[in-house]
Amino acid sequence: MYIAMNRFKIMPGSEEAFEKVWADRDTHLDQVPGFKEFQLVRGPSHDDYTLYASHTVWASEDAFVAWTKSEAFRAAHRNAGDNKVLYLGHPEFEGFTVVLGSTGG
Amino acid sequence: MYIAMNRFKIMPGSEEAFEKVWADRDTHLDQVPGFKEFQLVRGPSHDDYTLYASHTVWASEDAFVAWTKSEAFRAAHRNAGDNKVLYLGHPEFEGFTVVLGSTGG
Repeated sequence: MYIAMNRFKIMPGSEEAFEKVWADRDTHLDQVPGFKEFQLVRGPSHDDYTLYASHTVWASEDAFVAWTKSEAFRAAHRNAGDNKVLYLGHPEFEGFTVVLGSTGG
Repeated sequence: MYIAMNRFKIMPGSEEAFEKVWADRDTHLDQVPGFKEFQLVRGPSHDDYTLYASHTVWASEDAFVAWTKSEAFRAAHRNAGDNKVLYLGHPEFEGFTVVLGSTGG
């Protein structure tokens, strides 16, 4: 299992606009091989930004990398530059491989 | 749904020891109300540290907060200070609430 997170620092006051961008967006993920889950998540707020992350779970890192090279990926990111005014700096990508885990009983 | 992540910066060369601490640890989470998933995940390596995170999924932020005040939480963290030599700085906590999401088809 592999978790891909892209961290976004959003200007105070732009949170609602940023969430609307994602709500209106077609991520084209549903039929991608190895895709398991997507969430847009909201983290802590600071004086100069609110942290958000796109949080996706994949069967493997290979499945994620294959997606980044696909037409579905290009389609999902076609308009990604349109909303730069909402951001403080660039998104920051972090990929995580699962070392160990458990689930609730 | 709520995602709680604690980020750990681990000294180069100490990765295996850090993973062993978690493998040997009883997190006492299985029977906690609202607990859904736990993973220890390994992120990118840098010159001065490797990023790890404990990644837990909860039914709600309230369920997570209730756990942090419980005896199970105290039991899970009783020996948390024993391995400080492995760390670069303090763990950094980030909690995320889910804004929107989808799952694979």
